[in-house]
Order: sequence, then structure tokens, then C-alpha cells
Amino acid sequence: MKLWEKGIPTDKKIEQFTVGNDRELDLVLAKYDALGSIAHAKMLGQIGLLTQEETTSLVDALNEIIADVVVGNFEIEDSFEDVHSKIEYLLTMKLGDAGKKIHTARSRNDQVLVDVHLYLKDELKAIKEQVKNLFDLLMESAEKHQNVLLPGYTHLQIAMPSSFGMWFSAYAESLIDDITMLNAASKIVDQNPLGSAAGYGSSFPINRSFTTQELGFETLKYNAVAAQMSRGKAEKTVAFAMTSVAGTLSKFAMDVCLYMSQNFDFISLPAHLTTGSSIMPHKKNPDVFELIRGKCNKIQSLPYEITLITNNLPSGYHRDLQLLKEGLFPAIQNLKACLDIAIFSIKDITVKDHILEDKKYDYLFTVDTLNEMVVAGMPFRDAYKAVAEQLEAGTYKSPKETKHTHEGSINNLCLENIKDKMKTAY
Amino acid sequence: MKLWEKGIPTDKKIEQFTVGNDRELDLVLAKYDALGSIAHAKMLGQIGLLTQEETTSLVDALNEIIADVVVGNFEIEDSFEDVHSKIEYLLTMKLGDAGKKIHTARSRNDQVLVDVHLYLKDELKAIKEQVKNLFDLLMESAEKHQNVLLPGYTHLQIAMPSSFGMWFSAYAESLIDDITMLNAASKIVDQNPLGSAAGYGSSFPINRSFTTQELGFETLKYNAVAAQMSRGKAEKTVAFAMTSVAGTLSKFAMDVCLYMSQNFDFISLPAHLTTGSSIMPHKKNPDVFELIRGKCNKIQSLPYEITLITNNLPSGYHRDLQLLKEGLFPAIQNLKACLDIAIFSIKDITVKDHILEDKKYDYLFTVDTLNEMVVAGMPFRDAYKAVAEQLEAGTYKSPKETKHTHEGSINNLCLENIKDKMKTAY
Amino acid sequence: MKLWEKGIPTDKKIEQFTVGNDRELDLVLAKYDALGSIAHAKMLGQIGLLTQEETTSLVDALNEIIADVVVGNFEIEDSFEDVHSKIEYLLTMKLGDAGKKIHTARSRNDQVLVDVHLYLKDELKAIKEQVKNLFDLLMESAEKHQNVLLPGYTHLQIAMPSSFGMWFSAYAESLIDDITMLNAASKIVDQNPLGSAAGYGSSFPINRSFTTQELGFETLKYNAVAAQMSRGKAEKTVAFAMTSVAGTLSKFAMDVCLYMSQNFDFISLPAHLTTGSSIMPHKKNPDVFELIRGKCNKIQSLPYEITLITNNLPSGYHRDLQLLKEGLFPAIQNLKACLDIAIFSIKDITVKDHILEDKKYDYLFTVDTLNEMVVAGMPFRDAYKAVAEQLEAGTYKSPKETKHTHEGSINNLCLENIKDKMKTAY
Amino acid sequence: MKLWEKGIPTDKKIEQFTVGNDRELDLVLAKYDALGSIAHAKMLGQIGLLTQEETTSLVDALNEIIADVVVGNFEIEDSFEDVHSKIEYLLTMKLGDAGKKIHTARSRNDQVLVDVHLYLKDELKAIKEQVKNLFDLLMESAEKHQNVLLPGYTHLQIAMPSSFGMWFSAYAESLIDDITMLNAASKIVDQNPLGSAAGYGSSFPINRSFTTQELGFETLKYNAVAAQMSRGKAEKTVAFAMTSVAGTLSKFAMDVCLYMSQNFDFISLPAHLTTGSSIMPHKKNPDVFELIRGKCNKIQSLPYEITLITNNLPSGYHRDLQLLKEGLFPAIQNLKACLDIAIFSIKDITVKDHILEDKKYDYLFTVDTLNEMVVAGMPFRDAYKAVAEQLEAGTYKSPKETKHTHEGSINNLCLENIKDKMKTAY
Repeated sequence: MKLWEKGIPTDKKIEQFTVGNDRELDLVLAKYDALGSIAHAKMLGQIGLLTQEETTSLVDALNEIIADVVVGNFEIEDSFEDVHSKIEYLLTMKLGDAGKKIHTARSRNDQVLVDVHLYLKDELKAIKEQVKNLFDLLMESAEKHQNVLLPGYTHLQIAMPSSFGMWFSAYAESLIDDITMLNAASKIVDQNPLGSAAGYGSSFPINRSFTTQELGFETLKYNAVAAQMSRGKAEKTVAFAMTSVAGTLSKFAMDVCLYMSQNFDFISLPAHLTTGSSIMPHKKNPDVFELIRGKCNKIQSLPYEITLITNNLPSGYHRDLQLLKEGLFPAIQNLKACLDIAIFSIKDITVKDHILEDKKYDYLFTVDTLNEMVVAGMPFRDAYKAVAEQLEAGTYKSPKETKHTHEGSINNLCLENIKDKMKTAY
Repeated sequence: MKLWEKGIPTDKKIEQFTVGNDRELDLVLAKYDALGSIAHAKMLGQIGLLTQEETTSLVDALNEIIADVVVGNFEIEDSFEDVHSKIEYLLTMKLGDAGKKIHTARSRNDQVLVDVHLYLKDELKAIKEQVKNLFDLLMESAEKHQNVLLPGYTHLQIAMPSSFGMWFSAYAESLIDDITMLNAASKIVDQNPLGSAAGYGSSFPINRSFTTQELGFETLKYNAVAAQMSRGKAEKTVAFAMTSVAGTLSKFAMDVCLYMSQNFDFISLPAHLTTGSSIMPHKKNPDVFELIRGKCNKIQSLPYEITLITNNLPSGYHRDLQLLKEGLFPAIQNLKACLDIAIFSIKDITVKDHILEDKKYDYLFTVDTLNEMVVAGMPFRDAYKAVAEQLEAGTYKSPKETKHTHEGSINNLCLENIKDKMKTAY
Repeated sequence: MKLWEKGIPTDKKIEQFTVGNDRELDLVLAKYDALGSIAHAKMLGQIGLLTQEETTSLVDALNEIIADVVVGNFEIEDSFEDVHSKIEYLLTMKLGDAGKKIHTARSRNDQVLVDVHLYLKDELKAIKEQVKNLFDLLMESAEKHQNVLLPGYTHLQIAMPSSFGMWFSAYAESLIDDITMLNAASKIVDQNPLGSAAGYGSSFPINRSFTTQELGFETLKYNAVAAQMSRGKAEKTVAFAMTSVAGTLSKFAMDVCLYMSQNFDFISLPAHLTTGSSIMPHKKNPDVFELIRGKCNKIQSLPYEITLITNNLPSGYHRDLQLLKEGLFPAIQNLKACLDIAIFSIKDITVKDHILEDKKYDYLFTVDTLNEMVVAGMPFRDAYKAVAEQLEAGTYKSPKETKHTHEGSINNLCLENIKDKMKTAY
Repeated sequence: MKLWEKGIPTDKKIEQFTVGNDRELDLVLAKYDALGSIAHAKMLGQIGLLTQEETTSLVDALNEIIADVVVGNFEIEDSFEDVHSKIEYLLTMKLGDAGKKIHTARSRNDQVLVDVHLYLKDELKAIKEQVKNLFDLLMESAEKHQNVLLPGYTHLQIAMPSSFGMWFSAYAESLIDDITMLNAASKIVDQNPLGSAAGYGSSFPINRSFTTQELGFETLKYNAVAAQMSRGKAEKTVAFAMTSVAGTLSKFAMDVCLYMSQNFDFISLPAHLTTGSSIMPHKKNPDVFELIRGKCNKIQSLPYEITLITNNLPSGYHRDLQLLKEGLFPAIQNLKACLDIAIFSIKDITVKDHILEDKKYDYLFTVDTLNEMVVAGMPFRDAYKAVAEQLEAGTYKSPKETKHTHEGSINNLCLENIKDKMKTAY
């Protein structure tokens, strides 16, 4: 069923090409489409375009559809173009003319917009919660392992002492910035586009403030053209925020893969979290972290995909925008899966003790040594030269322990301050 | 069944996360995996690691698998990690120990590499053919409409006369460059990686020249590490070539969408190739070209996705590489679908006559006018000023026809030369 | 002068390659480097690593350097690697040992981090102000031209009535989302990284809360490793926010270029804002908007550049990070220049009246017509069919005026609500 | 001097914004612009639009300009918009009317196109030569160190034996694919666009075959619209080829940085090729390879920048295209600098002996061990289990040497075949 058919049927080949995999992608929108329609029906009732009875029967029927969606009892057959057509069909089958009236003062653009905004709001909320859970786990790990030292690297060269406390809580604190980005994206999608019709509003006396409140949006995207332009822009903004989280997770996964290499050997994973090789019987591979890294890197290409699709299109709807769903929707599920499996796996990471006893790590402490000279009164540049000469002569002795005191240093991780910062940001 | 299981099973959650949608993606590789295994089995026979009987029975069984694949009678159940495990299982079920021996002197890395190379070779060939068909159609359209004038724009401002002959054959000639890119990609994937095992070769006395010839590769990727590094690099190269085609197609589609706008009104599509609106009864939208544009723009993000996944990974296999398939494989199908539907739709484009009669197009001929003055002896800059003054004074008269003679101009399209160039490039 | 030279000089060729254009780029950081050093010196005084006299003389000398920077009287000669070396040299020349002591408890990583954070804070503030000015101008234009109708397009096909009021204020409202992104980026860079030394903190008893307050940062990036990781991440976040603004501006510029085409002819620019052609005397090209579009599109590639440079690098400093400056710094100046010239040019846009009188725009009103039938009681789908039949029969009559009432529609632009929303977001 | 000025001067602010840094970028085009003008002048002579004398004096004057360019005695002052205006000015100053006539039958679009094509042809040739030199050096290093074993990694886990011979020649063989891409790009830019004027050809009876031969192009881009469309497309194609080289180089640099880490310690660089730290006296950092990596990663973002600028622009010139130069030109110089410094530095890499004596590398040989069992008749999967059990029981004994025989394996590197392949590809 096409909502716009006027007699000359579209060629089958064209239809197949244009509909693409919309039916499948639209399934995640079904609940939101029905919710949008409930709010729209109530509003049509309020302004007198539906009778009280029509409104009630539409709301009831839509609630039944939601119930079907929730239990997985909703599908979009090939005879329907999209979720909107299917739901309108169900309403019309059940309620006759009242069902047809649900499309009054709406366009499918409108519906997709409101569906996608509601969907993104929910998913951003879910991602935020997962990020918070990961934060909590990393902070807990930092606390637990705060006294276990680790070499710190610059240029991949042994540099200065670090610790597992530093390492875990660094990623935790870094996630707070990702929360800030998720908040910005949430704020941007929390604006009701419903009522923009085909992107220019309409002559119906609709009440957009009513649907805004009904749907729980914080505000309206007032201007109908602006509402339409949020298609693509909302997706890109969400993609930026997701990219932010994905970047943090990818970097952490890179560290894990490196630290699990026998050449570092700082951490290990239990056998049931690793995978083997079809030809090397000794292998215990960190595939789970390699895939977190890879999937998160792939997610980071999402904003570019969205930008390429939308860039240089003049204002007004273009069918190209339909393609945004097929990149974004799986990326959201992938990010959630990565966060989920990261939390599942990180808690089983075993941290190695006594790493710094290996003598290749002696040099880590040269800066601490020269700092002592400085505190004792020697100018920094002179102390630097003195230690360099000891190293050259092979007479340098490593203290092998740290007495760092400043905020955010090995022996003063400020975990409580970081937790407070997260609380404020969240 | 896992090829590498040693007793401690991998956690279900990890397994699900790591396998992802590999089973589905691997289906397109099944035929190539069996072909690779046939060549490998023959080679193992040739070097005496399989008996003549074992070889024959393996080759027969693999040919049966290919026959099943071709008729759609092959699947990868959830109990298998990937296509390689499934095929090895089938062989072992049928042939016992001989089946187990097929993995001798191979790694799954190896198999994926050879499968992907064979697959990409085939798909590039198919894409080239489609590009050639599109070229032929555009050249034919150019020839047919070579006398129909069209405004030429610079800065989206009316500039100089053009024609449908110019327009269609411009895109045709542009496609020749895309063929050059497809050829480069084809050459790069036409190197046999089989025998690289896990990426470092092996101690088996295998004969890689034999499998190279057997599989129809032009040459070997000799160095086993280089063969392994072609994972990611081959995909990226193919993506570059696809991006090249997609860029041309996207630009053409943009022109079509613009030219179909009532504000240009240069061309039209029959009703059965357009779609309507759910609220505007007058709409006949060029969705098919908008989606060609959008899909081709999306394809252009593929190289970035691949680069982001592979970038800064040191040499040697990483599990991240598994993720390349899920971007590349659908992109190939999408490009083929776009080429197919473009060919299907372009042939039905109707070209409008008498476009230049509208007086807003009079200015198109100012350059022709001043060129006449120049040919008559006036310095160019002076002629430029003279015409500018006529325009200012409103006295300019437009000739409304072109007498262009040089190679590649409106009245000398050089279609035969362009066809020859394609012939040489193809 | 190199801060780390120990006897064996680095090869000249290597030095030239590694320093690159740092000296030039570092000039914008000079003021911030001196400000960071002032805070650092005061803190060293506060914890007793500098005497009161040393502190005072350092602060005075640094203020003199800032004064020199402000009047353009500061340069980084080829004998210095970067701004940090140059400033330390100046201090040592002037103050001897006290000058050498400024590097106590710091690393150049540290200094770049704090310089870049301070610089980005300032630039984001400046960009926000420009965006606000552009918003004000667009709102003013919307108000002024709110009654001038414009065709609205979907699929580049004539769709429904719009207006200049809708168009201008749509972009204004869209800019509010960009402000939200700029705010998120500002919040993320408003965290003091100073004291992280080489990325792992140090054994000096420094007071990071002191420098945080001194430099006006809202909070600390506590964890030293997190502070180091903000290199790249801060830049990427700022790039996302800039990309958001750039995307809005680019789309607006695309509309302007299209609307200035003779085929639309909705707006015009005075001659002194256009450019001509070297061969076509009639041309008045909107180069300024084409370049806003192009530059803003280029800016949108910045996050990808940053991601490609930083992706898959394990934690800890890598020299690659130095390259972030050469993409980001000019992009900031370009975005500011685009905003500036947009404001300069938009105020001179002339809006055409009576556009809708052209009969090709009659169809714009079909929806309004059928809506009237609906309000009069006809089900939407039936009204849709009725109007479609009028169109088919050529009997459709266009009302040519709009009576839209809902929030955000042509006749109810909600400009005050949009202004309030900006006020809240800013 | 503006070539198109007609009385109303363009606003200074607009002029500054639109010209941007064109004058600086155009300097590299000066030689090519003069070469293009020489060919154009000769052709105008040949078709009788210039007298023999005019032609001769123009050619002489242009040759003098080239001589000035070569010795660095050519500049583009602020009073000129671009290199074309400056050269035309010089010719007019010197030759009067004959100088003015050089612009006959040309547009600046035309000139930029031919300049850029000639420039890219030259630069691609230079890059190819550098790639060949790097190939030769890597092959030489592979030969020299072919017997020095190295651990091979998969998943960053110790996997199977490799060697410096494998490692160096892997990158060499990989560069052959990059040559194939450079060849494709060279072929694509080796098509004469001169004569396309503003992108639609002209009414002048020019002889484009003549200029094609004169300028040494292999063929013409016949269609004038296609020639214009090569703006952006040529740049993107070159960027793809550069990205291909950059990807190989970046990966090699990543390996070097990892292998220089004390945790791998496979190679070292002499002190004069490393840099130190401002606070850690023991540091010898591989900045040169980090910057090769970073710069090459940045280069890989170039195609996206170009795509973002050009995407969704309809056919015909747009001013946005001017911005392509400012990304591409420095990227070319950066790639050349990276290749140059790579060649300079790689020859001084010191390779460590006896790496595999460390007992953590024992597992490298498990596959060789099980392969022996297989060759002795045991099915692969059974041998796999036997070795896995030895490993579990701690009874596994490592052979510590390789006897690989197949093409492209440690003991049969096929260096001659790889050299032959390069010879064929080059």
C-alpha cells in the first residue's frame, strides 16, 4: 500500500530500489511511530478535527499496536512501503474512516522526524547509562589497583612511572567528556519536530505545544523548515557524541591489546574470554578487545557517512535522507554492544604485579631523581645534565618507588573529585 | 564447531560478540572458499601431502558444495563460526581424515584472503561491465540529442551554451577515468595470497605457483607478510575505485534532480519512474535519482571506514580486519544496484526541446558574440568591454545558435574518439 | 636551542623535518604560553620552589613578553624549536638561573596542553559571539521579510508555500543547536591540564588547584594521564562543534547560490559583493557564498583529519600529536572569516517580491486546498484523491495566499520563542 | 588587476576573502601556466589568430618568465588576483596588444585546469621515483638481513617466526601496489583539458590536438564539460594514489616505533636521528618515524577533504573548486618529504641479532613442530591437539630455526621475482 498512489503504479524495479531495507530498519521505529500518532490523535481531538470517540478509538488501537511491538508481534510486509503505511493500514482496517483521519495535518517526513527524535532520545539515555556503568567499573578498578605500578610511555619509549590506578581512572575521567557530548546531543534531539508536515508547516490549526508536552519533549523545534533541517543534523550530532565515546573505548582497547602482548605482559584475560588460532595451538587472543577497537573505529566513520550524504543538499527534504537510518541504527546497537562487552570483560582483567622489577624499567625514575636534586636547590637544567651524565656513565641508581603528591598523580589520584565531576556532568 | 577449541570453551557472550554477522556475510564467500580449497587440495596432492584418492574425493566433495551454493542450498548454522569451519565440517563428515587434512598448510587468514581476492576480482569485473553499459547508453543518448541545446552554468549562473550531447557524453568520457581506477584495483587484487598461512608462511613445502595458476591469478603476492598486509589494503583500493565510479554517478544524479526541478525543467521522467507524496497530490518525485545520489555518496565514505579500521595497526593480523567485510560487501551490491537502476532509468529520460527560447538564456551567447569581434581582429579585452557595454545599455542581441568547431565542443563532440579511448582503457 | 640537547646534535635534515612549521603555528600560542608560565611561576613561588623575588621577576618578564606579543613584536627564530624554547631563552637571558627554573615541574607536553586549552577557550568564545551575531541578523531579516512568500521544495520539486521569514529564521533556529555544541566543547576544554608533566605527573609537590584558579579554568583535568589524553580529544571535540556551525553555514550558502541562479531568481546581491568572469561580460557571480560553502565543507573534514592522526595510538604522548595544530589553527581562522563575511554579505541580500505570481508555482497550494476540504469534514485520503483529480483535469485553482496558524508556520513564526530559546542556550 | 573588472569595484573585504592565499599557492603553477600559454600562443599562431611575430614574441616573453620562475625571481603581488592575471599583465606591459591577445579562446578555468594537470603529472612522476628508491632500499635491507629472525605477531600476540628479510621486503612488495595506483592517477591526469574554456568550449576555431602534442599529453579530455569535471576528480584521484603510498609508509613507521620500544627492542636508530625530552634525560625518541606516521595519516584525510568540497555540486564550475589547491599542494610536498626522510633514515636502522633467544619466543615454533608431525603422516587436527597438550604440560621443545621452502617464505624470499614485478609495474 502506498499512501500517495494515484493510478499509475511505480515500476516494480524502482519500487524495490527506493524502498530498500526500510521495512527492516523501520521496525525499531514502530513503537515511536505509534507514540507519535497517539499524541497527534489526542491533539486532533483537542482542536476538534477528531471527535472524542475517534480519538479514543485511535489511541486504544495504537496502544494495542505498541503492545504487539513490545512482544515482537509486529511486522512490515512487502506490501507496505514503511512503518507509517503499515500502521495507517492497521488503523484503517480496524476503525475505517477514523483510521484514515490520523494522517490529517501530517506528512511522512513529519512522522519520521518525530520517530527518529524519540528513538534517539531513548538510545542516548541508554548509552549514557552504560557509559556511567563503565565509569564506575573503571573507577573501582583504579581504586583496587592504585598501588600497582606500571611503566608510563611517551613515543612508545619507557618514560616515567605510572600505575594501574592512573590508567584505569584516566579512561574514567575521559568518559566524563563523552557524557558532556552525549548531553549536548540529547538536548539537541529533545525538540519536538512534529507538525512541520512536509517541512513547511500546514494550514491546519494544529497545536504543537500540546504534542510537545504529550511526547515529553523539552521544547519545540519551532520553525517548520528548521524542524525539517534537523533531519541529518540530529543524526550527525548523535554520531559526533557516539564517536566521542567510541574514541575513548577504542583507545582503551588498543592499550589492552598492547598490554596483553607478551612483550608488555602487564595484564591477562581468563581463557574463556580469549579465542584461539586454527593453526597455532598456543594462542590466547584478545579478540574481544580487538573487535571493540575495530567496531568503535568503524563507528567513528559514521559522522563522515552522514556528512557525505547530506552535504551540499539545499534546504528541503530529499529522498537521500532516508539512507541515514541504515548507517546510524546499527551503529547505535554496535556501540551499545561494545559498551556492554567492555564492562563484561574489563571486570575480569587480571593485573600483573611487580612489573617494574624488570631492569629495562630502571630509567623510568630518572625524572624523580633529578626532581630531588632540584628540590634540594639545583637549577632544573643543571640537574637534567647531571642525571644524563650518570646514565651515560652507567652509574644511575633507580629508586623504584614513587612519592608523588600533587592532584592527579600516582599517589594522589583524586578519585573522589573525579566521581564528583561525573556526578555534576551526568 | 571451532577449529581451534582446546577444552576451555569461550564464553557465549564473547562468542556472539566476536562472531557478529560473519555467518551471513560469509555466504557470498562460500563459492570462493570452495574454489580456493580445490586448488589447495590439488596442490597438496601434487606435493604428496594428500594421496591421489584423497585429492580426488576432496575435489569432488568441494564441487558438490559449490553446486549447492549455486542453487542456494548452503547455509552456515549458528554452531559454526564461519564459512571455513562449515566447509571443513562438511568435508570431514563425508570423507573422515581426508576432510581434516584440507586445513594442512593453511590458516583461516589465508583462506579469507584468497576468498576475498577471488570475490573482489569477480565483482570488479561485473562492475566494469556495468560501467561499460552505462557508457554505451550515455554515448547513445549524446548522439541522439546532440543538437538539443542546453544552458551551461558556472557558479550556478547562466554562462554559455551547452547541449544534451555535451552533457551525456561528458559523463560518458568521465567514466573512462573510473575504468582506469577499476583496472588498477583489479590488477592489485589479481595476486594470489594463498600460502601465506597466518601471515608468515609455513614450513610446509607447498607450491604457491601451482595454486596461482590453478586459481587464475595473474601473479603471486610473493612475500607472506605482504600477502597478509593486503588484507585491508586490497579492500581500500577496491573502495577507492568504487568511490570513483560512485562520484561520477552521484554528480550525474545531482544534475538530473536539478534539471527535473520545475525551475530548470530540462528533462522529465515517465510517471512510472517517479514517486508521489503522502500529502501533495501534484508531486512526481525523482526518488530514484536522489537515492542513486545518496547511495553513491554513502559508498564514498567506505574508504574512510576502512582506513579508520586499519589505520595505525602494526603489521600482522588483527581481528579488527574481520569488520572490513560488513562495510565492503553491501557497498559492492549497492554500487551494482545503482548502476543497474541508472541504466534502467536513464534510457527513459525525456529531453525538452527549445529550452533556450526563454529570454533569460539570451546572455549565454555573449562570449560567442565577442569571439566574433576577436576573430574580426579586435583584441580580446577590448571586445570584452564592448559587449559589457552593450549589456549595460540593453542593446545586446543574442544569435541563439552555436557554430563551435573545436574538438570536444558542441558541434564537434568527437564521440568516435571517446569511444576509442574507452576501448583502449577497458 | 633545544631544551633536551645532550651533546650529540640531531641531524639538520631530521631537525627540519621534525620541527616543520611549528614556529609559525606557535605564534598564536605565545600569549597563552606566557600566561601559563605566569601561573606556573606564581605556583612555584607559593610552594617554595622559587623565592618571592624570582617569582616577581619571572612574572614581570613574562608580562613584558605578552606586551611584545600583543604589539606583534615577538618572533620565533630558526634557532629555536618552538615557542616554549624561545620564551625560556628570553627569561634565561634576562634573569639567569631564575629563568632556567621556570621549567621546574613542567614538560613541554604540559605547556602545549595548557596553551592549546587556553587558546581554544578564547576562540570558542569568539566563535560563539559571531554565531550569536549571525543569529541576530537572520532573525532581523526574518522579521523584515516575514510576509514575502517563497516556494518550498521537496525533492527539489515545487512543494508547498514557504516565505523568507521561514527561511531566514530556520537557519537562525538551527544555529541554536550549534551553540549547544560550542558550549559542550567549551566545557570540555575548560579543564586545567597543567601539572601533568610528560603525561604521568611528577614528584614535585605542585599545587594544581592554584594554577586552575589562577588561569580561570572551571575545573582540573585531575588525572595526569587523562590530561595528556585530552591532546587530540580536545581538538576533535572543538572540531565537531566547528563542523556543526560550518554545516549550517554551508547549507545556507548552498541555498543562496541556488536562489541567486537565474532559474530561481529569489534573491540578489549588489554588484560590489559579486565577482565577474574573465570571458563572460554578463556574469555577476556569488563567489563569496560559494567560498563560504567550500571553506565550511573543508572545515567539516577536520574531525576526520584529527581522527586519522590520533586513531589507534595507545595512551601516552606521540610526536604525531604535534601535527594537530596545523589543521586546527587555520580552520579556526577560516570559520571565523566565514562567519564574518557571511554577516557582512547577508545584510545586503535583496529579496525579490511577487515570486509566487509565476504560474509554475500554482501547485504549491494544493495541500492548503485539500486541507480546507478536510477541515470541512472530508477524510484526508479522499480529499487527496479529489485534488489529484482536479490537477489531472486541469481544473485546480490556486488560492495564492496562506492562512497558517500553528507554531512555527508561515503566519506564526514564533520569533520571540526562538529568541528566548537562544537566550537560554547561549 | 582583475581580468573581468567592468567599473564597479568589488568590495575590498570580499576581494580579500575570495582571493585567500591563492597568490602563494599559485606560485608552484607559474611555470606550468607559462608552458600552457606557450602552447596556446603557438596554436593561436597556427590557426591564424596571432601573427607569426606576435607568436614569437609571446613565446619568447613566456620563456623569459619561466627562466625567472626557475631562479625564484617571480612573485604575485597583492595587486594581482592570481598567477594568470600576473602573467597576462607582464605580457601586456612588454608586448602591448599582443600580450592582451593571449587570453583569446581561453578562460581562467581552462588555465587552472591545464596548469594543475601539468603540475600533477610532474609531481606524480617525482613521487613514483621516490617510491622506487624506497623500494630499492627496502629490498637491499631485506637481502642484507634475510637471515636475522624476528617474532611474527598476530593479534599482537607472539605467533610464528618471521625475519627482517620478510619484514623489509613485505613493505617493498606492498609498494608495488602503490605504483599501480600512481600509474592509474598519472594516466588520468595525462589528458589535455586546454580548450575547454569556461567548461563548455568556445566558438573559436582552436586546435586542441595541436596543444595536446605540444604539451606532451598522451590524449585529450575531449568533451569540454568532461574536461571541466576533471577539476576535483583529478585531484581526488591523485589523492587516492597518494593515500595508497601514505598508508604503506604509515604502517611501516608504526612498526618502526613499536620495534624501537624497549619492550620489543628489535631495531635502533643512531642518536643523531633521534630526539630527546625536555625533562627525561634518558630519552632517544623516534620522532622522525612518528612524524612520518602522523603526516602520512594526515595525507590520508585528503581525499575526504576533496570529496566534501566537491560532493553534490552539480556540473559546471563553482568557486569552491579553488579551495582544492590549498589541501592538495602542501600534501604533495609532505608526501615527498616523508619519502625523502624515510629513505634517509631507514638506511641507518640497526637490526638486532639473536632476538629469538629470549625464551618468551619459544612458542613461535609450535606450528613448525606440528607441521613436521603432519608431514610424517598425522592428520593436521590431531597434530594440533598433540602440540596443545605438550604446551599445557610444559614439555614443548622449540627448534629455534626455520626450514621454510615455499615461495615468499623466510628461507625463500623470492626477491628477484619481486624486483621483476616492480619492473613490470613501474
